Amino acid sequence: MNKVSEKYEYLCRNMNILLNIQSGMEDQGEMIKAGIIGATGYAGQELVRLLLQHREAEIVWYGSRSYVDKAFSSVFGNVFEIVEDVCRSDDLQELAGEADVIFTATPQGYLAGVLTKEILEQCRVIDLSADYRIKDVAVYEQWYKIHHESPALIEKAVYGLCEINREKIRGARLIANPGCYPTCSTLAIYPLAKAGVIDMDTLIIDAKSGTSGAGRGAKTANLYCEVNENIKAYGVASHRHTPEIEEQLSYACGRPVTLNFTPHLIPMNRGILITAYAKCSAGVTAEQLRRLYQEAYGEEYFVRVLEPDVCPETKWVEGSNFVDVNVIYDERTGRAIMMGAMDNITKGAAGQAVQNMNLMFGLDEREGLRLVPMVP
Amino acid sequence: MNKVSEKYEYLCRNMNILLNIQSGMEDQGEMIKAGIIGATGYAGQELVRLLLQHREAEIVWYGSRSYVDKAFSSVFGNVFEIVEDVCRSDDLQELAGEADVIFTATPQGYLAGVLTKEILEQCRVIDLSADYRIKDVAVYEQWYKIHHESPALIEKAVYGLCEINREKIRGARLIANPGCYPTCSTLAIYPLAKAGVIDMDTLIIDAKSGTSGAGRGAKTANLYCEVNENIKAYGVASHRHTPEIEEQLSYACGRPVTLNFTPHLIPMNRGILITAYAKCSAGVTAEQLRRLYQEAYGEEYFVRVLEPDVCPETKWVEGSNFVDVNVIYDERTGRAIMMGAMDNITKGAAGQAVQNMNLMFGLDEREGLRLVPMVP
Amino acid sequence: MNKVSEKYEYLCRNMNILLNIQSGMEDQGEMIKAGIIGATGYAGQELVRLLLQHREAEIVWYGSRSYVDKAFSSVFGNVFEIVEDVCRSDDLQELAGEADVIFTATPQGYLAGVLTKEILEQCRVIDLSADYRIKDVAVYEQWYKIHHESPALIEKAVYGLCEINREKIRGARLIANPGCYPTCSTLAIYPLAKAGVIDMDTLIIDAKSGTSGAGRGAKTANLYCEVNENIKAYGVASHRHTPEIEEQLSYACGRPVTLNFTPHLIPMNRGILITAYAKCSAGVTAEQLRRLYQEAYGEEYFVRVLEPDVCPETKWVEGSNFVDVNVIYDERTGRAIMMGAMDNITKGAAGQAVQNMNLMFGLDEREGLRLVPMVP
Amino acid sequence: MNKVSEKYEYLCRNMNILLNIQSGMEDQGEMIKAGIIGATGYAGQELVRLLLQHREAEIVWYGSRSYVDKAFSSVFGNVFEIVEDVCRSDDLQELAGEADVIFTATPQGYLAGVLTKEILEQCRVIDLSADYRIKDVAVYEQWYKIHHESPALIEKAVYGLCEINREKIRGARLIANPGCYPTCSTLAIYPLAKAGVIDMDTLIIDAKSGTSGAGRGAKTANLYCEVNENIKAYGVASHRHTPEIEEQLSYACGRPVTLNFTPHLIPMNRGILITAYAKCSAGVTAEQLRRLYQEAYGEEYFVRVLEPDVCPETKWVEGSNFVDVNVIYDERTGRAIMMGAMDNITKGAAGQAVQNMNLMFGLDEREGLRLVPMVP
Repeated sequence: MNKVSEKYEYLCRNMNILLNIQSGMEDQGEMIKAGIIGATGYAGQELVRLLLQHREAEIVWYGSRSYVDKAFSSVFGNVFEIVEDVCRSDDLQELAGEADVIFTATPQGYLAGVLTKEILEQCRVIDLSADYRIKDVAVYEQWYKIHHESPALIEKAVYGLCEINREKIRGARLIANPGCYPTCSTLAIYPLAKAGVIDMDTLIIDAKSGTSGAGRGAKTANLYCEVNENIKAYGVASHRHTPEIEEQLSYACGRPVTLNFTPHLIPMNRGILITAYAKCSAGVTAEQLRRLYQEAYGEEYFVRVLEPDVCPETKWVEGSNFVDVNVIYDERTGRAIMMGAMDNITKGAAGQAVQNMNLMFGLDEREGLRLVPMVP
Repeated sequence: MNKVSEKYEYLCRNMNILLNIQSGMEDQGEMIKAGIIGATGYAGQELVRLLLQHREAEIVWYGSRSYVDKAFSSVFGNVFEIVEDVCRSDDLQELAGEADVIFTATPQGYLAGVLTKEILEQCRVIDLSADYRIKDVAVYEQWYKIHHESPALIEKAVYGLCEINREKIRGARLIANPGCYPTCSTLAIYPLAKAGVIDMDTLIIDAKSGTSGAGRGAKTANLYCEVNENIKAYGVASHRHTPEIEEQLSYACGRPVTLNFTPHLIPMNRGILITAYAKCSAGVTAEQLRRLYQEAYGEEYFVRVLEPDVCPETKWVEGSNFVDVNVIYDERTGRAIMMGAMDNITKGAAGQAVQNMNLMFGLDEREGLRLVPMVP
Repeated sequence: MNKVSEKYEYLCRNMNILLNIQSGMEDQGEMIKAGIIGATGYAGQELVRLLLQHREAEIVWYGSRSYVDKAFSSVFGNVFEIVEDVCRSDDLQELAGEADVIFTATPQGYLAGVLTKEILEQCRVIDLSADYRIKDVAVYEQWYKIHHESPALIEKAVYGLCEINREKIRGARLIANPGCYPTCSTLAIYPLAKAGVIDMDTLIIDAKSGTSGAGRGAKTANLYCEVNENIKAYGVASHRHTPEIEEQLSYACGRPVTLNFTPHLIPMNRGILITAYAKCSAGVTAEQLRRLYQEAYGEEYFVRVLEPDVCPETKWVEGSNFVDVNVIYDERTGRAIMMGAMDNITKGAAGQAVQNMNLMFGLDEREGLRLVPMVP
Repeated sequence: MNKVSEKYEYLCRNMNILLNIQSGMEDQGEMIKAGIIGATGYAGQELVRLLLQHREAEIVWYGSRSYVDKAFSSVFGNVFEIVEDVCRSDDLQELAGEADVIFTATPQGYLAGVLTKEILEQCRVIDLSADYRIKDVAVYEQWYKIHHESPALIEKAVYGLCEINREKIRGARLIANPGCYPTCSTLAIYPLAKAGVIDMDTLIIDAKSGTSGAGRGAKTANLYCEVNENIKAYGVASHRHTPEIEEQLSYACGRPVTLNFTPHLIPMNRGILITAYAKCSAGVTAEQLRRLYQEAYGEEYFVRVLEPDVCPETKWVEGSNFVDVNVIYDERTGRAIMMGAMDNITKGAAGQAVQNMNLMFGLDEREGLRLVPMVP
């Protein structure tokens, strides 16, 4: 739980790099070559922000079908004079020849339609879409109303929730990077689901997300004046992240889970907050619940178990890869109220993707992700 | 449910006024004299906005301890050149001699400390604080951590949820104007609680409120930079509106109710959204649930049962006295998801107070409240 | 400047209506029939909100090319159960046969392409676009990059800035409803321009607008996440409202005016703030400047000259037809700083359009517009 | 202007550190010990964020009078599990014995009351307040309405606008860290003022700031509901940053400057936008103006001269130390419109303070500040 002496570790890391350089290795050759397809969406450009601050990766391909041949920095002025590349196509085949790892931040169904075994042999793929997250292709097709074009690859994919699947991720060629809601929901509920102290049939997840989660597409419903000074639920009893959460939690508790998941659109750019409710087993105590979180996450850098009674706030994790979690036990009702806060485009998308890349390439999991959350 | 021909009704109403004038009655004498204590809080100034647009009431006392002798319009510039009065004290006794009705938008415990039977004989009182909302004084004292100084008056108070207690309100001298969360929660859940089709032991209310609900006090936690781009739960398992909601719903279903209520602070000025969950009785259908809402609210002007699958949005009720409700039945889990949206300082405070005044004085319940919600 | 005794005037007005009714006149026949083309834009739907609260007009046509045959309230949920009409086409010819007045809240160039003398003989037209605002068609075509298809009608149009052109408006068949920036800019600067106490060659207008001014079109630049937590200038030295402001101020001061106008996009829904700067003539005093505003607007209901040193805030006029203005004289630089705040879709568009309608039909100018600004 | 090959430089830098370590130097001993007084204000906590990501400095003192003995991370949850220190007093004397550099983010007048020559001999001081910014103490006292208690130290202070005073800063013991508005204003106008191509007597600065600029004090005017959906000017013709800007620009153009400066409060957390206007000398061209900016800032890492006609946006610099500037020449009026965007608490306060520290300690000026701005 203690996270000090970062600087010493940095130095050790640097020393290794230096020794490599001194021993004649080409530095440039050592950098991980990363390609991004969908670089001009919100998750894509966050990948850019994070990889630019990563010391062992470089971006070799800014793919964006809508902006081909336009300077990336003319779309995202924040990297003016930092990124000088122009946007390129979404040609996965060509990109596979140039990159060590490909990030796909693309619409549902796109990757499933173009990915092949051959590409996976050439380079690693981290998919930020939902195409390979759900093991049962029938469930995927039912919830997403899309025909899956490469079901045979699903079994090759590892669900990239790092804190849960760390070891499998290290060896993977294809990562199904988790959805934003599933990441925060699963991590907030996991310790109690795993320990069997809550009745999974009573589980309800009420989620709230900033508007970047709705993507950068030009839709009337996402205009400033439609979102600002407003709040609403959407996708009630039908949101496509539901089966993904159910699948992950079923692994935790060892049996199928059916739950309610209700997302809400919040007038803010970034951030997801999860409030989950479940009935506790008889005899459970607040201390016991708390201990389960500490045991689950004591060694985890990116999951912070807050002090008793402190409620997570999205502001405290903004721009970082942290997930803040906590649990409150309500004696009156016998329910646990589980809470989690996270930046939906960092840990909920691009940050976790980089964390996966770090694991896959044998780097310190935190490289490029030790960003202090920004306040206010 | 049909709400047309408003204009004709206006004319009839006007005709009555006119005939009164023609028959020699003093017009000015007919106006209801209203006094406000706590006029410079958010609920108080909303009372001012609404009463200024009310054709049969006038404000005779702008009480505000913090701004005594200052022009009210120097505090709230929106009424510059509309209100020329200066703020006066919170002397209830003196005010009772000048007003037909007193609105108290004051801190918890204030009114209980100064209200007397004599005052209630002189004039009517509509209390926007919680002092007389809970019938069991022990429950009040436990949740509010305040000693109640006039418990004998509690039984005289009518809980001013107009759609439920309309007839009692007409005859009341003291109204306990409902809390914002309890208004929206109770109205969103009432039809199913009343009909006995949900298991009240499974009821969970996840609530979201704009920041005006936190009041106008100068607290660091409510500064712009602390609230903006942020969301958090607060008062988890301990919020003081919990027993108020439980009491009202227990009247609906005929037995004690214990539930979870979790409020969240949202970066917007106005609006409350309620998302409530409960297990349905076996055999319940979506159509049946919907019909219960239509039966409960078909005749209600201020409660709008939305079209199937339409989720309430706070923007659609902003600045108005409407409560938009809807229910979705999730077949997978057998739960009803009940939703309600409302403006927390209109129907959730000042609007409902005016609605109560209208009932108490025999006016059209909608007088001064037929405001079209403002978009965007 | 005194605006009391509103209620008495209401009664007088009502008495007239009543006498008309008593004398056998059809009430329904007396209502002004209003048609709206472009009813589902932000200005169009604000017209709906205002006309619904207007006692002498009714909407007979909700024109919206994008939503033909859809219920208007399915687009704008705020009027659910209030408006039961479906959207109709933009057929001006057909509409002219049904309406007494047509409001066009349409893209630039649309009305100029379809309006005819014959239509204007059938009914009055209030155009919220810029097509007839600028008298010199060459200037219009240069700034708007559009060929004007009915230049002969320009001279028939009256520029509908009510406080300046009141008498001409009463007799007009075609109103060029002013732009939002020009309304606020002209009214904020007019008294000093008219009095000849500022050097018009030094005039600079720095303007800030809420995002509803950018319209309801689905553009990436107007998405919530692009506007929120951001501010930028746009249209610098090239914004199309520049010649409109210059033309109006040239009428005020009696000679051609060339000025700088710089608009900025602000993360809020509604509101325009103008900060204008000009060098004063020698010998000018702060008191003299103030007096000029009071003389110009003392009798105006909708223009409020604030107390000395009070800076206008858009919040104080939100949802209303008020324009708050003030001037500060900086002795150090000899400049007047002129300020104005207004709701861009009320007084800046729909509110002023209704004010124009009231004048054209001989009604009290304030009918339907006596809305108290909403706080917070 | 080209800013590539960052990573190579990082490695060189790391190599030096490594060689130092290899040669037996204590690493920990090499770290700059930094103390912060006022660590729980918005600028103070931003210093914490930046210094935590700085590889050659460590924070040894989190001073905060209001939170003494409380865990810093209990006030700013973003650094939970990152900072384990508790807040300490504002005892400058004691702190001077522990730190190499002291940052004071304190109210006006505080530092002037406690700073001594002796403290300055012990350690360096970077003052984020205004106490030592203005050379003429009479001007300071007139605008700030404060008696300056250590005027003798003013001459020792170097005005820490790094891009202008870089060399002087390197040798300074006391830095007057510039105000937020003055930093952005001066950098946006400097090239034209220096080149003598604008008439300084016509200079007008219209500024817009996010609300963090108003500080973290619990004032009603800065509550969420007062700021949100609102915009206003404040301090018109009287804001205390005026003389600071005038002084700096007078150095640039070589003679006294008197100008108008008007700040506005914007509903966003971070960001300052400057729009400045001045009459150009006859014969000036747009290309010439542009070239002056490029010459002035071509070598500057933190000042980015945008592409022609691109207007700066605060979002593009959020969380970073960049200042984006541009100029547009309006041929119609002969004026230059100069624009600048900056994060008010990074480059406008804490970022520039760290940049100053880097210069004073002989480090790469960009150390700890190469943060990519965060979007959205």
